[in-house]
Order: sequence, then structure tokens, then C-alpha cells
Amino acid sequence: MHRTHTCGELRITDINKTVTLSGWLQKSRDLGGMTFIDLRDRYGITQLAFNMETNAAICEKARKCGREFVLKVTGKVIERSSKNANIPTGEIEIEVTDFEVLNESQTPPFTIEDNTDGGDDLRMKYRYLDIRRKPVRDNLLLRHKMSQQTRVYLDAQQFTEVETPVLIKSTPEGARDFVVPSRMNQGQFYALPQSPQTFKQLLMVAGMDRYYQIVKCFRDEDLRADRQPEFTQIDCEMSFVEQEDILNMFEGLVKHLFKNVKGIDIDTLPRMTFADAAKYYGSDKPDTRFDMKFVELKSVETLHATSLLPAGFPVFDNAELVVGICAKGCAEYTRKQLDELTEFVKRPQIGATGLVYARVNADGSVKSSVDKFYDEATLKHWATAMNAAPGDLLLIMAGATDKTRKALCELRLEMGTRMGLRNPDVYSCLWVIDFPLLEFIEEEGRWFAMHHPFTSPKPEDVEHLTNGDYAKVRANAYDMVINGVEVGGGSIRIFDKTLQGKMFEVLGFTKEEAQAQFGFLMNAFEYGAPPHGGIAFGFDRLCSLFGGENSIRDFIAFPKNNSGRDVMIDGPSPIDQKQLNELGISVNSL
Amino acid sequence: MHRTHTCGELRITDINKTVTLSGWLQKSRDLGGMTFIDLRDRYGITQLAFNMETNAAICEKARKCGREFVLKVTGKVIERSSKNANIPTGEIEIEVTDFEVLNESQTPPFTIEDNTDGGDDLRMKYRYLDIRRKPVRDNLLLRHKMSQQTRVYLDAQQFTEVETPVLIKSTPEGARDFVVPSRMNQGQFYALPQSPQTFKQLLMVAGMDRYYQIVKCFRDEDLRADRQPEFTQIDCEMSFVEQEDILNMFEGLVKHLFKNVKGIDIDTLPRMTFADAAKYYGSDKPDTRFDMKFVELKSVETLHATSLLPAGFPVFDNAELVVGICAKGCAEYTRKQLDELTEFVKRPQIGATGLVYARVNADGSVKSSVDKFYDEATLKHWATAMNAAPGDLLLIMAGATDKTRKALCELRLEMGTRMGLRNPDVYSCLWVIDFPLLEFIEEEGRWFAMHHPFTSPKPEDVEHLTNGDYAKVRANAYDMVINGVEVGGGSIRIFDKTLQGKMFEVLGFTKEEAQAQFGFLMNAFEYGAPPHGGIAFGFDRLCSLFGGENSIRDFIAFPKNNSGRDVMIDGPSPIDQKQLNELGISVNSL
Repeated sequence: MHRTHTCGELRITDINKTVTLSGWLQKSRDLGGMTFIDLRDRYGITQLAFNMETNAAICEKARKCGREFVLKVTGKVIERSSKNANIPTGEIEIEVTDFEVLNESQTPPFTIEDNTDGGDDLRMKYRYLDIRRKPVRDNLLLRHKMSQQTRVYLDAQQFTEVETPVLIKSTPEGARDFVVPSRMNQGQFYALPQSPQTFKQLLMVAGMDRYYQIVKCFRDEDLRADRQPEFTQIDCEMSFVEQEDILNMFEGLVKHLFKNVKGIDIDTLPRMTFADAAKYYGSDKPDTRFDMKFVELKSVETLHATSLLPAGFPVFDNAELVVGICAKGCAEYTRKQLDELTEFVKRPQIGATGLVYARVNADGSVKSSVDKFYDEATLKHWATAMNAAPGDLLLIMAGATDKTRKALCELRLEMGTRMGLRNPDVYSCLWVIDFPLLEFIEEEGRWFAMHHPFTSPKPEDVEHLTNGDYAKVRANAYDMVINGVEVGGGSIRIFDKTLQGKMFEVLGFTKEEAQAQFGFLMNAFEYGAPPHGGIAFGFDRLCSLFGGENSIRDFIAFPKNNSGRDVMIDGPSPIDQKQLNELGISVNSL
Repeated sequence: MHRTHTCGELRITDINKTVTLSGWLQKSRDLGGMTFIDLRDRYGITQLAFNMETNAAICEKARKCGREFVLKVTGKVIERSSKNANIPTGEIEIEVTDFEVLNESQTPPFTIEDNTDGGDDLRMKYRYLDIRRKPVRDNLLLRHKMSQQTRVYLDAQQFTEVETPVLIKSTPEGARDFVVPSRMNQGQFYALPQSPQTFKQLLMVAGMDRYYQIVKCFRDEDLRADRQPEFTQIDCEMSFVEQEDILNMFEGLVKHLFKNVKGIDIDTLPRMTFADAAKYYGSDKPDTRFDMKFVELKSVETLHATSLLPAGFPVFDNAELVVGICAKGCAEYTRKQLDELTEFVKRPQIGATGLVYARVNADGSVKSSVDKFYDEATLKHWATAMNAAPGDLLLIMAGATDKTRKALCELRLEMGTRMGLRNPDVYSCLWVIDFPLLEFIEEEGRWFAMHHPFTSPKPEDVEHLTNGDYAKVRANAYDMVINGVEVGGGSIRIFDKTLQGKMFEVLGFTKEEAQAQFGFLMNAFEYGAPPHGGIAFGFDRLCSLFGGENSIRDFIAFPKNNSGRDVMIDGPSPIDQKQLNELGISVNSL
């Protein structure tokens, strides 16, 4: 072993010990008579001291070493004259008596510091240097701790980790599969799993009872920011359960993780229906770190004019929904700030036509951008309805229900950010439940499973599957949401082959297509499938949340860029013609 | 929850409790007045009792249920009149008061029993039923325990689990890669990793110090029995270590696994050089559960006739090697048995031309198949040299060194099996060390890395790399062998870019080829690579060894057959033309 200790473990109690350390040269300071080197490894930094008077030869060797040289030193642990309270080893240093350069280093293309001068592209190309930086390394160590603690919890609950295959079969439902040409079965392809969904259900049919896996999944989608073609899930399934059992079990997992990774106690997770999430937050993943709930001044349920909205302002008169939020203490917003908000909602990504505001002044009077359409009594009614106090700002939007809700959701999040209400170190978790089973996709002209085709409808809603009123069918499906991010989702599955057949029919599969794609699952259901359900958590996302960051990329050791390339290894890449021939495929000319 | 208890947990101390159980109907016995059902889940079997007199309705419902029906019952725990000492719940039964069929089942295509009537093909097609059988389920539970305990050990040693990418870049060195066409980078392909080798080395350059991963790897090879296209490794790497450190660390892992999974204490692992393994066992993975070491009567080192082999028998006279084993107590082998052994070594897979035997009789006389060439004094010399006692059988082969050793190795294993010396519940572990760095492959006409191109030569042998005497270069490489199976192997890596460049040169890479294939690793070595080394264990194989079985297939939840097909899901399969177009590839016509 090229060391007796790591660079993070020596303390004042180790004084006078002779030790050997190995690591990287973080920083070197030449003070004439003395040279100091900060030696770094995964565990910390230890200061090395070289004395020109007592050991000129070694001191001169040390002075020739540049940043990131790999050094091995032996020496005595001594007390530092000027201590550094910022690092755990700050009370000691090593008086070096033996010195060896294990490897040299070119000057790295960016500084290996917490705040590096390296841009994203450079850091990705030299990822092996980026990981030497403490923030990135700490993210990977956090990820390790997250997976450890996930296993501790699930193992204690009698879950069994079972590895499901990576080379499976392509299915047209869902996102696009990555495929793998088969050499031994030419003209045929494996697919990489988008999730182990069918296999975990088969494991329930197989009687494994409680399954989990921390597992790589794959989706060949056009990559938006912060999507990766390969990602990791905590994938779970249980037998003989109802929705309530799953919610309790995995609420337990998240509490365990917060407790054991972050030292945070989390309360019982509130539950919100999909309908309420839409009505009060305009989203199925509300950020509940702050309140600022939507208040409807007019909706499809209250279409007729009320004292809140006497006729007069055509935009509101003609709107399906008039809905607002109350920004506490923002009445002082300047015209410029309000214009910024209007521009924000008019951006193409949001696409609203405008924004109405009303300030509740210190004296209780209300001043709005629609003063010419509404008298002050009406405006005061709004303020009351929206629970506004003097000093608050009302922001109101109008239009078609879904679109207006989505736009106001974005505005609410923007206001939350501006008002400092979205602290990444504060965690607000909840369950969103009672999702619709199906959604109609206009472009495709048919109904799609909102979760996936195996999700069970609520028993009391099954009749609507038969009478064709699909929009009314709610699913036994649930999402866990933390700080406005969907970290996990799942459902109770259909375990009855007749109901599963009906579901495929609704989704527009012919019997033959259903048989060809999911025949093995439907066949399995002929042999005693137990009631079962499960959930999958996006592990990369969960880690980034726990790390208090928005981007998942720095919680993945070797991520890909938005074109699906690994710029470090420069892959994907062309392959030999010989290999293509063996696989029986050709590359089309471009 | 559809149960209050599992089918494996109720005991005599639970008498009079009202419980709810769910599970599968394992067996039903109708005794007229009473019906008994064995209800099974992952945890065990509990007997249900139905009484025609006290509850005819339920009893009749129960009688209608067939094997593998999914049942949910509520009732009282009562003491059994005829107890079953073979199962932990054998003292109690459930007097059923509520009865629900959760799901029906067709009659399964084979019996769900420890000794099933199902053949391999049927069991694979209905794998979800096969896993309901205790032996298969126990294998998967063992595998879970193995991965748990692997993590317990490595976590305690400050290893960090880091996930490396699955979509990487194809390299021509080594076995054939599975490839994945890239839609976003048309004409280019990802490769699935044969191992995370380069990434774990980059993690060492990145300063992660101690890395591990239990990870899926992929090889598109023609499948021999018991090879899978996707397999799992325990992959590990350490920095600032020498070979001795790695051997100690992973000897510790295997001892930990034997102790915590099997309750077996393993002694310090003996170490055997590759040269000795070849000389004494004819294999780099000797089965050391039994002795029966090779004894050379003549070798390249002792080419001239000795008192052991006076000239006369042309086969021996002309052979490079004459070598034998002593089968203790087998002098009584019949002519038929000896003929079988001769046939065994003459099979094309072994390809020997013949076998010489000599019986050491009770009176000390020696009787051989070559009596007409050697006098009894010579034969007695053989017996002495081979440490034979009266009652032993000598089996001797001759020919070219490598080929003869391989053939005698097979014969030794066959004798071990015949003599009952290869008990799967006895474990003999060792390290094989000092492997050659390079081997010359005749068909390719060049030298190949025996381990892989990043393996470090022994410092004292580096000179032979420069002077071209490649066969003499030994590697800092090591294999762990248990019961004649190579369960793991690894090496100390080259961390110096000049030596790495020299290695690529020896392997026949041009500078450009080396740069194109491994440029990212060689570049990384410019920035302060630490000394490092590692090991990878074949996890499927390790599990099957611990399970006391030869086949890995039953330790994999959903294995593929020898054509790389998953017969359960019927994959791989053709994909849509639309998908091919998106990928920019075509399937060649057959």
C-alpha cells in the first residue's frame, strides 16, 4: 500500500507518528525557507511541510512539482504553527523526510477547485478531472449513500433485489426504445428496457412478493435539458397489497432517506387529488414549499357572472376560467417588475395573452390594471376572495381552463423564486393521487394510458370503461412529488386478464397486437396472478434533490450531452463493416 | 393488505389468533368430512382446514379450487392433530371462516414441486411458474443475500459504488460487442460494455480511490452451455495499492461471503503460480478439493532418459512430456472401467491418442499396460515417484507438453468425479498468480494480452518487453479459483503512459489506432494517474458455486437460451420499418 493513512484522517492526537501519504498536489506555496504543499485525496487535504534548511534536496524536488502531480511522502506528523480551522486536518502538518513523485501531470485544463474556471463542455470532456473537484465527488458519494440507505430500508422490509434482463423485446407503446441487433437471430432486435415493468409484474406472478431493483433504464427520446438516454430507477413491486399499503411503504422509504442521509425528519405526506392539484396549482406536481394557491374568480362550475365578476371586461367575460394568485407583500412591485411578469407569461413557452394585476395598498384601497372595467368594491371582493392583506399583489389570468392553469402555474413558480420561497434546502413532499386512467391525445386521435396499460382503474369507475365515458375513469395511480418535482410514480396493476384485455381494447390494440406485444404477460395472468402494485423512483433526480441542486448531470459519474454523446470517450462512433456484416445490417446513406 | 401474516410465520404460540393469509393453492386433499389445502407464498406453506359439518358452504367453495388458484382466507389458528415436523408451520393450521378466490389459475404445464415434471424448455417458457418452485426461488434469495453481503463488506472498506455508463463506445480488442444504433448520431453506434474496465480506471484517475459496482456486462459470443449474453460482475478497483493489497482485500471479501452467507470459515487462500498450476494440474484453474497432482516422468527439463524411463516404448521415447496421476485405491478398476477412461481421453474434445495405466497390487507388484516395454523395477520406480501405495492406480499420458497437460487435467477431473472427491458442499479456494502478460495466438499471428491491454508487467520483467522476449514477461495479474472455477480475476494496471504506449505497440496497434480506441484513457494518464489495480468477480458463477450447483442459469431470474433467446418473452424480435428508418439502418436480406 502506498500509504499508511489517507489525507483526511490525521489529527492532533497523531502528533509524532511517522506516516506515509499519497495523493495529488492541490496547491504549493514557496515561502523561501519553507515550502508547503496541500496534498489531496478523496478523503481530504493534508499540509506537507518542506524545510530548505534541514532537507534542501527534498525541498527542491518538491518545488519542481506542479498541480495534480501524484506524490507519495513519508514524514512525521507535527503540530502546525498557524492552524486552519476550515479543514479537519488543519491542526497538523507532515514534516516530510521521504518524497517520491508517483506520476507527473500536465497542467489541467481547468482548476481543480470548488469554484472552477472550467466551462461545462470542458468539464465534460475531462470528466475524470472534474470528479476530482469536491462538489462533484461529494455528489457521487451522496448518491452512494442514497443507494445504500434505500437498500437498508427495503431489505428490512423483506424486499428482494432481483436483476431483470437488459436485452429484452421492443414494444411500440410508450417512448422510443433503444434497440440492439441480434447476430444470432438476424433481422431481429433486442430492446433495452424503458423500465422493468413487465418483468416485475411477472415476478409477482412468480410469487416473489416484494421485489426491488436499483436499475438502469433507457429511452431514445430527443433530449431536453437534464434528460439522459440512460437513467436509474429504484424500481419496486409488492403483492397482496392495496394502494394504501404502497403509499405507506414508500412514504416510509422517503422518510428513511431524509432521516439517514440528510438528518431531516419528514412529516406524514399530505395527499392531494389530481383534480385539486390542477385546480389549486395548475400542475400534477405542485411545489408546495410555498402556499400561493390559485383562487378562481370564475370557472366552468360558476360560469354566470357573480358579484366577483360583473360583466364589462370582454377578456374575462369570454374566458372559461379567471384565476389568480396572491403574492404576499408584493404590492410595491414597480411598473418595470410588473411588465417583466407580463413578458414572462407572454413568452412562447408559456403563451399567455396577458396578465392582470391588482395592488392592495396599505390603506386597504385596491389599484388594478383593469380599473376602468371594475369598480373598487369589486376589486375589494377579489382581494377578500384571494385572502389578500394590505401590501399584497394579486396576479390574475384568464382563458381556456387547462392552458390558463398551466400558465399561472409557471407564474406562481416564478413568483416563488423571486420571493425566495423555493429554498433547495427546504423539502415539501406529498402524494398526488386519483390520476385519470386515460388521456385523449388529439394528434394521435386515440386514448392513451396516462401511466401505463397495466394500471388498474378504481373499481367504482370501471363501469365508465364499458359505457365509453373514458375521461371519468380514475386510476389507482399515485405520484410522489417533492418541491415541485415528480420523484416517483406507480399504480396498482390490473391482475385480471379480462380487465387487461378490455384495457388493450380501449387503447386501440387488436387482440393480435396485444397478444404479440404483451402475450407473455397476459398468458402469465392465466396462472394465478396475485393482486399487486408498485412504484418507481427516478434515482438521478432524487439524488439531485437531496443534493440541493436542479441538474441531474452532476449526480451521474459519466453523463451524456444533449445529443446523446459522451464527449469524454467520443461515443457513439462508427463500427467496422465486418461487424455490420456479422449483424446482417447496413447503414443507410445519409 | 390482503393478509395479516405470511404463510411462513405462524407457530404454536399464535394459537387462537384470527389471521388473514393470501397465497397459492399448493395442494388440496379432500377427506370427506374435511378438506385440507396447503397455501403457499414466498415465505412458506400453511395448512388450511375446511370442515364440511361446521361450514359446508366454504368447504364446498374450497373443493372447487384447483392448483395455483390465488386464495385469501381468514380464520383461527388452531393446533394440528397430526403435526408435520418437516415445515416450520407444521404444528398449526387455519380453521377457515372467510374464503375468497382472488384469482383462478389454469392447470400449470408442470408441477410446482421441488422435483418438477417439467423439462428445461417448458420451465424456461413459463419461467414465472418455475420461480414459484422453492429451489429456484431459494437461488434468487441466495443471490440477493450474496449481493447484500458483498456491499456490506465493501462499504465497510470505504469502497464507493459508482454507476458507469451502459451506452459506451465499441472497441475491437477482446470479445465481440453488442452495439446500439444511435438515432441522433446516424451511422454511429454505442456498444454495451463487456466490463466497465476503462471507466473504473478513469475513476481512479478521478481520485475516487476505492470503487465497486455490481453491474451487468455484455458479450456477443457464440454461447456455450452456461454462458449468457448478459452477465453480472462484482467490479472493483483501488488506488495506491500493490498486488498484495488487492489479494488481501478480496480474500477478505470471499471469506466474508462464506462466513455470512454459508456460515463457513475459510482459511487463508494458498497462492499458486501459473507455472505451477500448469505443471501440477494442467490448468490455470485447478480444482484443489482433491490432491492427485501431476507427476512428470519426463519433461522438457529432463529430456534425456532416466532410470524412470529407459528407452524402448516409442510413444514415451518420442514424447515431450510423460506425466501421470495416482488414483488412490483404484487398482481394482476393471478392464471395462479402464477402457472407459481410455475412450474418455480419446474423445474429440480431449483428443489424446491413448492412456497408459499401471496397477499397484496389494503385494506391491506393479502390473501395467506397457509391461512389454518396461521391467517391473522401472514400474516400481514410477510407483515410488508418484507416491503410490498398494491398491493405487497410475494413469499416464504422453505427448506435446500443453496438449498432454490439458488432456490429463480432464482425466484428473473425471477421476475426481468418479472417486467422489468433488463434493459441491466442500470449498477449496486459492489464488493463481504470476500469469504471463502476453500469449501468442497462432491463427491471428500476433501477441495478445492474456488479461487485457492495461495489465501491468512485473517490473523485473519489463526488460523483456523491450528485448522482444515477450513469452518471458509475467504480469501482475491474479485469478481467484474456487473448486476449479475461475470466479474472479484482475491485475495491477499500467499507470504510466509510456509503458501503456509500449504495450499497445507490442499488441500491434498503430499509434493512431491506439489513440482512436483508447485515446481518452491515455489522455487521462497525462494528468496524474495514481498506481491502481482491481479485480472483477463473475457474480452469476459465484452464486451458483455458493448454491452448490454447476449451472448459472438457475441463479438468473430470466436467463436466455443458447441461441441468446428469451423464450418466455419471445425476444429478440423484428422491429417496425419506421423504427429502422429513424435509426438510419436496414436489415440485409438473408
